Amino acid sequence: MTQTRQRVEAWLGEFESALRDRDVERAAGLFDVDSFWRDLVAFSWNITTVEGRDGVTDLLKARLDDVDPAGFALTEEPAEADGVTEAWISFETGVGRGIGHLRLRGDRAWTLLTTLRELKGFEERRPQGVEHQLSKGRRTWKELREAEQRELGYERQPYVVVIGGGQAGIALGARLRQLGVPALVLDRHERPGDQWRKRYKSLCLHDPVWYDHLPYLPFPTNWPVFAPKDKIGDWLEMYTRVMEVPYWASTEVRSARFDAAEHRWSVTVEHDGEPVELRPTHLVFATGMSGKPNYPSLPGQDVFRGEQHHSSQHPGPEAYEGKRVVVVGSNNSAFDICGALWEHDADVTMVQRSSTHIVKSASLMEIGLGSLYSERAVANGITTDRADMIFASLPYRIMHEFQIPLYQRMAERDADFYARLEKAGFAHDWGDDGSGLFMKYLRRGSGYYIDVGAADLVADGRIKLAHGQVDHLTEDAVVLADGTTLPADLVVYATGYGSMNGWVADIVDRETADRVGKVWGLGSDTTKDPGPWEGEQRNMWKPTRQENLWFHGGNLHQSRHYSLYLALQLKARYEGLPTPVYHLQEVHHTG
Amino acid sequence: MTQTRQRVEAWLGEFESALRDRDVERAAGLFDVDSFWRDLVAFSWNITTVEGRDGVTDLLKARLDDVDPAGFALTEEPAEADGVTEAWISFETGVGRGIGHLRLRGDRAWTLLTTLRELKGFEERRPQGVEHQLSKGRRTWKELREAEQRELGYERQPYVVVIGGGQAGIALGARLRQLGVPALVLDRHERPGDQWRKRYKSLCLHDPVWYDHLPYLPFPTNWPVFAPKDKIGDWLEMYTRVMEVPYWASTEVRSARFDAAEHRWSVTVEHDGEPVELRPTHLVFATGMSGKPNYPSLPGQDVFRGEQHHSSQHPGPEAYEGKRVVVVGSNNSAFDICGALWEHDADVTMVQRSSTHIVKSASLMEIGLGSLYSERAVANGITTDRADMIFASLPYRIMHEFQIPLYQRMAERDADFYARLEKAGFAHDWGDDGSGLFMKYLRRGSGYYIDVGAADLVADGRIKLAHGQVDHLTEDAVVLADGTTLPADLVVYATGYGSMNGWVADIVDRETADRVGKVWGLGSDTTKDPGPWEGEQRNMWKPTRQENLWFHGGNLHQSRHYSLYLALQLKARYEGLPTPVYHLQEVHHTG
Repeated sequence: MTQTRQRVEAWLGEFESALRDRDVERAAGLFDVDSFWRDLVAFSWNITTVEGRDGVTDLLKARLDDVDPAGFALTEEPAEADGVTEAWISFETGVGRGIGHLRLRGDRAWTLLTTLRELKGFEERRPQGVEHQLSKGRRTWKELREAEQRELGYERQPYVVVIGGGQAGIALGARLRQLGVPALVLDRHERPGDQWRKRYKSLCLHDPVWYDHLPYLPFPTNWPVFAPKDKIGDWLEMYTRVMEVPYWASTEVRSARFDAAEHRWSVTVEHDGEPVELRPTHLVFATGMSGKPNYPSLPGQDVFRGEQHHSSQHPGPEAYEGKRVVVVGSNNSAFDICGALWEHDADVTMVQRSSTHIVKSASLMEIGLGSLYSERAVANGITTDRADMIFASLPYRIMHEFQIPLYQRMAERDADFYARLEKAGFAHDWGDDGSGLFMKYLRRGSGYYIDVGAADLVADGRIKLAHGQVDHLTEDAVVLADGTTLPADLVVYATGYGSMNGWVADIVDRETADRVGKVWGLGSDTTKDPGPWEGEQRNMWKPTRQENLWFHGGNLHQSRHYSLYLALQLKARYEGLPTPVYHLQEVHHTG
Repeated sequence: MTQTRQRVEAWLGEFESALRDRDVERAAGLFDVDSFWRDLVAFSWNITTVEGRDGVTDLLKARLDDVDPAGFALTEEPAEADGVTEAWISFETGVGRGIGHLRLRGDRAWTLLTTLRELKGFEERRPQGVEHQLSKGRRTWKELREAEQRELGYERQPYVVVIGGGQAGIALGARLRQLGVPALVLDRHERPGDQWRKRYKSLCLHDPVWYDHLPYLPFPTNWPVFAPKDKIGDWLEMYTRVMEVPYWASTEVRSARFDAAEHRWSVTVEHDGEPVELRPTHLVFATGMSGKPNYPSLPGQDVFRGEQHHSSQHPGPEAYEGKRVVVVGSNNSAFDICGALWEHDADVTMVQRSSTHIVKSASLMEIGLGSLYSERAVANGITTDRADMIFASLPYRIMHEFQIPLYQRMAERDADFYARLEKAGFAHDWGDDGSGLFMKYLRRGSGYYIDVGAADLVADGRIKLAHGQVDHLTEDAVVLADGTTLPADLVVYATGYGSMNGWVADIVDRETADRVGKVWGLGSDTTKDPGPWEGEQRNMWKPTRQENLWFHGGNLHQSRHYSLYLALQLKARYEGLPTPVYHLQEVHHTG
C-alpha cells in the first residue's frame, strides 16, 4: 500500500470513527482551518457548502444522529500532486448510499464533497420489460403506456408537475420516471425541441458535446461537437419519447395556487386548448435560467416606425437583407443575432452599453473545459459523471482562483484577437477579478459571449459599434446618450432577462415570488451579484422558502447533474421519508 | 514481462517477419495443423474462414503482396487458461487498420481473427457541427439537410440503395452515412419502426438488451432487458432521425435491373405513390433474414370457410376470443401466437410436424449469453464491441463444441420443465448434435423457440397439441395425416420462410436469384443445412455472385457488427480502392 493511500485511509478511518462516536469536535478537527464541505443532499437534504471547522461543527451537530453515516471507503487509488491528495470515496447513510471526493492537504481535509446517489430500497433498476409468464388479460407495454397517458392529469394526479419542457424539464422528467415518481412535464410549444427549433436559424450550442449529454442516454459517438439547434430539437423530441418522459406539449400554465392546509398545489393549465386543473404535491419551475425578458422602457418607442423586439423574439435574419438594424446589447444574444444579420447582408450596428467578456469557443473548449469535457478527457477515462463530480468538488468560494490562470492562458493564446477587438473600440473585460466566463455565468448568468465567429466582424468593423445607453427613439432612429443617432429599420433589444422568479410572480403571485426571492447567483459582491455570500446558487435544485416549490435548470451540464439530486429529494418526499432540511436558504434579494 | 506475453509477442514477431519477407511457408508453419484464420475484409475483401496450414498458405499466396500487412501488436495483456493463450491485437495494411484476436496452443496459432476497422484517409470522425467562422450565405444544418432530402434520389443518385428499412437497413444506413457514402434506405411502411409496431401485440424482443444495441447509439442504461415491440419501433424511428439515416418510407420496390455495361442498377420504386427510378451502383437486400413466407399449398384450402393466414400476417389475438384456432407449426412464431391467443381466451391447438428445440429465455440469457452480453459482462468490462469480437473469433466449424456443454447445463437447470414438456407429448430436440439454439439459428434460421412463457401452456395442456403433417382442410376443420380432425375458425400457418433470395427473384429475376443462390446457412450437413461446408454464412455481408448485389441482416448483434464490414467494403468501392475478392463464394444451392 502506498503512503498516499495510507494517509487517506487513516483520515477516512478517523473520520468514520469520530462520526460513529458522535464526536463532532474530533470530526471537525480533521478539517483544515481553511476548508469546505460541500454536501449534495446526503447529509443536509439540501445543496449545501459549509466552511471551516465551525461550518463542519454546525452541520454535524444538526445532522449527524439523523444521517447515521458509515462505510467511508476509497473506491480507487488516490492521487497526489502539488501537496494535495485527491481521493474518490463511497459511503452510506441510514437511508441512502453516496459517493464523494476528498482533498487532503497533509493530514487535514481541504475540500470534501458528499453526494447522495440512491435511496435504500428505491434503487434505480433496469426494468425487465416483459414478464416471462403468460396470464389472461395481460396488458402490453403499449396498452399500459396509453392508459397512463389517458389517465395522468385526470384520474391520476402527478406527484410532481414540471413547468417547462426544455432540456432541464426533460432531464428531470427522465430521472423522476426512472425513480418511479409520477410526474408530468408541461410545455407551451407543440413538440419537445421546439424551444430550439423556433429560435433564429444560425443558433447552435456553444458548449461542446461532452458537456451536453442528458442523463442515461448520451449523444452518440458521431454527434457533432457543436450541435445545430434543429439537431438538438430532434434529439430532445426523441429523448422524451424513448425515455418515456410524461410530457404535455401545447400546454400553457395559467396559474398555480398552493394549498397550505393540504400541502398541495392547484395548477390551472390549458392543454390543447382545454382547461385542466392539476393537483401535484410539488411544483418545479424549469422555465430556463433566463427568466422573463428585460424589455427596456424608452421614450419614443411608441413613435418609432420600424420593428422592435427583444432578442428572445428575434425571428432570424431572413427578412432584413439591406435593412438597417440596431442591436442594443453586446453579450451572447447580441453577437449571435448581429452575426446572422451580417451574413444575410443587413446593415448592422451593435450598441455596447457595458463591457463584455469574450472568449473564443475553441480556446474555452481547449483550455477551459479540455481536461474534463473533451475527446482527450474521454480518452483519459474521465466519464461524464466523473467530470461532473470533479466540477462539483470545487467550492464556489475559491473557484475563481482555479479559473484565473486558465483565462490568462486564453488571453495569451488569443492576444492578437483581443488586440484587434480593443483597437475597434470594444470594451472587453475578464470578469471583475480576471476569473473569466464560467464565474461570470455562475455569478450573474450574463455579461459574456462565447465567440463562434461574430466577434471578428466587430473587430474589423464589418459590424459597426456604438457606445452608451439609449436615450430615446425617434420615428426612424435610435439616439444614444451622447446624441449619436443611428437610423434603424429594426431595433433588437438584446437586453437580457430577469430572474426566474419572475415566472413565479406571473403564475403564482408577487408575494410568493418575493418570498422565494432572486434565483441564481452566489452573492460574490461582484458586478450584478450583490452579497451577502450565499455559498450555493440561490434557489437552484433545492428547497426554497415556498413549501414544495423548486427550480431546476442551468446549463446542460448542470441540468444533467443536478437533476439527480433534485429527483432524489422529490423521491424521498414521495416515499414519505423524513427530509429535515439543514439551513433552508435565507432570502436576501427579491429579484 | 510475463511468460504469456513473451510467447504472444514472439509469435506476433515471427508472423510479421514472415509476412514481411513474403515467406508464406514460414507464416503458415506458425499455425497448428488444426487451425482457423477468420478474416473480415482486411486480408480477403471478403468474409472468409480458411482452415489449417493449407488454408493459410492459399490465402497468403493470393493476398499477401497486395495487403502488405504490418504492425502486429498486442493491445492489452494476454490471458491464459486451460492451455490456450488469448490475445487482442492490432495491425495495419496498405489501405487500412484493423484489430483482431489470437488463440495460441503452445507456440502455434489455433484461431486467428483479423478484422478491418477503418480505411486510411477515410477514418470516421466526429463532425465539428458548425464552422466557427461566419460567411455570407452560409447554410444552416437544417437547410443542408432539407436540400439533401430534396435532391437525393432525384438530382443526386445514391451510391447504395438498401431495400428494407428495419433494424438491419437502418444500421447499415447509419454506418454508410458516417463513412460519407451516399446511400438511401427504402421501406414500404409509413414510418421507421412500423415493421415492429404492426406485428401482433404481445411481440417482444427475445434477445436481451446488451445483445441488441445498434451502432454508435446504444440503448440507454434504463432500457428494459426485453423490449416490447412498440418501444423498439419508437427507438428505430428516432434513431433514423437523429442519426440522419437517409430514409424513404412508404416506398415499394417494383423492380431492379443491373446494367452490366455501366455496372449500375436501375431500381424502379413507388415513393409516396409516385414512380421514381433510382440509379445506385450497389444494391443491398436488407429485407429480413426471414425471406418470403412459406405458405403451404393444401387440398381444401379453397373450401375452408374460416380464416387462414401465414404467421407473418397474423394480426394478433384480439378478434379470436372463444374461437377455435389451429396453429400449424411449433417454432418461435407458433408459440408466440398460441400464447397470445390463449391469453385472449381462444381455443388453441398447436400442430407439431417436426421436433422443436426450446430453451427458456432466462437460461439462454444466463448460460448462453451471460458471459458476453449481460449486466455481469458489462461489469466485467466486456463492451458490446468486445463481445461481438469474441463471438466472431469462434470458427463456425468448431462452434458447436463450445455450445454443447452450455446446453447440457441448460438441460440440467430446467430438467423439470423438459420432463413436463415431454410428458405432454411435445417432440423436443437439442439440435442434431446437442449444440442447441444458436447453432440451429446459424445453420437453418429456424426450428427453435426461446421460451417466454408459452411452452408452459403446452406442457400443462392449456394449449392443446396435435402431431403430424396436415393432409387437407374441410369446410370447418384441419385434417391431419392420421385422420385427426381439428375443427377450426382460424388456421395460422406458422410454417416459416424461404431464403432471402426469394426477394431477389421477385424484384430482379429468377435467373439472378439462382445465380446468387440460397442465403444463410453454413453447409453443416445437419437438418435443413445441407453440405458442402461453406465456412461462412452463405451470401451474408460479402460479395455475391451477382456483381454489386449484397445482403445484410441477421439478428440484432449481427446487424450491428457486420454492418461495419459491409459498409467498409462499400466505402472502399465508393472511393475507387481496388478490392480484389479472395475466393468469391461458390453457389451450391439455389434456395
